[in-house]
Amino acid sequence: MTEISVTKADKVGTLPIDGKLGFGKIYTDHMFVMDYVSGKGWYSPRIVPYGEFGTVPATIVFHYGQAIFEGMKAFRNTDNQVAVFRANNYLNRLNRSAGFLCIPSVDVEQVREGLFKLLELDQDWVPGELGTALYIRPFVIATDKYIGLKSSNTYRLFIIMSPVGAYYETGFNPVSIKVEEKYVRATKGGLGQAKTPANYAMSLAAQEEAHAEGFTQVLWLDAVHRKYVEEVGTMNIFFKINGEIVTPELNGSILGGITRQTVLELARDWGLKVAERQISIEEVYEAQAKGQLEEIFGTGTAAVISPVGELSWKGERILINNNRTGKFAQKLFDYLTGVQYGNVPDKYDWMDKVKRK
Amino acid sequence: MTEISVTKADKVGTLPIDGKLGFGKIYTDHMFVMDYVSGKGWYSPRIVPYGEFGTVPATIVFHYGQAIFEGMKAFRNTDNQVAVFRANNYLNRLNRSAGFLCIPSVDVEQVREGLFKLLELDQDWVPGELGTALYIRPFVIATDKYIGLKSSNTYRLFIIMSPVGAYYETGFNPVSIKVEEKYVRATKGGLGQAKTPANYAMSLAAQEEAHAEGFTQVLWLDAVHRKYVEEVGTMNIFFKINGEIVTPELNGSILGGITRQTVLELARDWGLKVAERQISIEEVYEAQAKGQLEEIFGTGTAAVISPVGELSWKGERILINNNRTGKFAQKLFDYLTGVQYGNVPDKYDWMDKVKRK
Repeated sequence: MTEISVTKADKVGTLPIDGKLGFGKIYTDHMFVMDYVSGKGWYSPRIVPYGEFGTVPATIVFHYGQAIFEGMKAFRNTDNQVAVFRANNYLNRLNRSAGFLCIPSVDVEQVREGLFKLLELDQDWVPGELGTALYIRPFVIATDKYIGLKSSNTYRLFIIMSPVGAYYETGFNPVSIKVEEKYVRATKGGLGQAKTPANYAMSLAAQEEAHAEGFTQVLWLDAVHRKYVEEVGTMNIFFKINGEIVTPELNGSILGGITRQTVLELARDWGLKVAERQISIEEVYEAQAKGQLEEIFGTGTAAVISPVGELSWKGERILINNNRTGKFAQKLFDYLTGVQYGNVPDKYDWMDKVKRK
Repeated sequence: MTEISVTKADKVGTLPIDGKLGFGKIYTDHMFVMDYVSGKGWYSPRIVPYGEFGTVPATIVFHYGQAIFEGMKAFRNTDNQVAVFRANNYLNRLNRSAGFLCIPSVDVEQVREGLFKLLELDQDWVPGELGTALYIRPFVIATDKYIGLKSSNTYRLFIIMSPVGAYYETGFNPVSIKVEEKYVRATKGGLGQAKTPANYAMSLAAQEEAHAEGFTQVLWLDAVHRKYVEEVGTMNIFFKINGEIVTPELNGSILGGITRQTVLELARDWGLKVAERQISIEEVYEAQAKGQLEEIFGTGTAAVISPVGELSWKGERILINNNRTGKFAQKLFDYLTGVQYGNVPDKYDWMDKVKRK
């Protein structure tokens, strides 16, 4: 494996106080970069100062969107130890996304080595307050300098990192969700199972309309029948119905979330009845009518767990668990954040420690 | 309207001979650029030397694909007059695409002025051989430097131009097309009617698989029933069945092509029976079985008209018009390229002349 070169920044920044962090606005001093060219493979893995790079307008990613990304997090625990949550799961998913976009896969060990070297160097940027984290964004863009419509021959991988504030600034409160009837996130045979810009570009108009109507996010239904639940915003979705934990199965249009997988593992380990299956919005409303809909929540890297307090479908609004956070959602949130911040033993070996400086 | 500033390149290039042009590989000396920021609108329209610009890795377009583009062409006629085909139609479509992507619309008059000023300056780059053209690529990218998932507050519009060689290097020959059963280009409620990177990112895997199987392109079916014809590759598709010209109606998942619109206008003007309607792949195969399928062809800016000589659906191959270019496709191609290269009178006022230097 090629040695990773390191070029340190002349000037280093300082971590702002937590209240000023927000999401994805500030970046650490360095980044990991690696290039690819057909015939040679990935080369020149390096850590360099975060900053501008030159690109030409004909760079193919601007035109045809051949790109993938990941979103993962590092946390600082009360012993000042920095650790990354399930790093290998995220990096393996980057390779799965690569396949859907005709992007060459990476050597996960190499990228992992680059990531941990970068984290070692920039670990002072990991905030420590509960709820804060260092958000890690690995991404790959196609870099050919011409606009023929075909897979690029050249790519660049970046890992950039951003300290982020508490997701729940006003506490862990349930959100109000609009069941989306007009827009469709993804279809089978499309890119929905890949973490790629297309799915996010798709979501902007729906999100803006939902916000304008007073909702926090949308719940996506399937493209074909417009009745089966797929995701909520950019999260996976879970239901607790009559004691059973239900989440849509990975059907080809849903992103396989790492937090989704974690919740499934925990629920099974905790002895709950768990089903990954098709679930229609009618079934959700019927369960509510029968008094069997106990909880709904989203799962994702940013929010970890996001309780849904209200659904609106065709103008009919229902309150989930009286618009209060459910017990199972709370238990998951406490357990997961407990492990992430080092207050609950890491019995599943989810946390990968960063070497202290 | 703000005056367009012009900064000329120190060194200018020269147009290669036609055989070396290819598609989208070489760019002219200059480009038109304009910026946008919320609250201020589009500002600083300028013509500057084509070349690198600085960008940071957190630039939002790399992550969430908020971008749109157009593809149009300028031609040199035998009197050395350069003219653009239906410029306003393309620029108006840029604004329609902008709406779907939550991108602020542009002042078409301003962009048009920038384009024609750019063309005036770089007109020596327009090749003159039949089949060649100057391909014009206006595009807009989101440029916020942070990765929160929301519409960007800042954008940049570019117009770059590339001399392109003859699309039909080996003559105007029919192509072999695979009816795509695995991948879906777009779904109603998605971005299919916008000219945006997502749709092109989506097509890469299907295109690579079709090529590997010996086909030139794929024919896309609808997302819901997987039976109604949508597009062919990145072109609209037309059928001539029992004397009638049929093309799929603009149903929300199909891009409204300017060449499609032009063909419809011509066919109607020529007194042909024309239908924009749903057409299933079964109907196409049935028409073939009855001996009524006369022609199939794609329409698009790059190829103008692309005859389909063979279809393969579920392993069943049919030859269209005995794998020869149909009379209607040939007539359209001759008429359209005749107008574009100035050999047929421009009675519909499609060609906008560029001021000679």
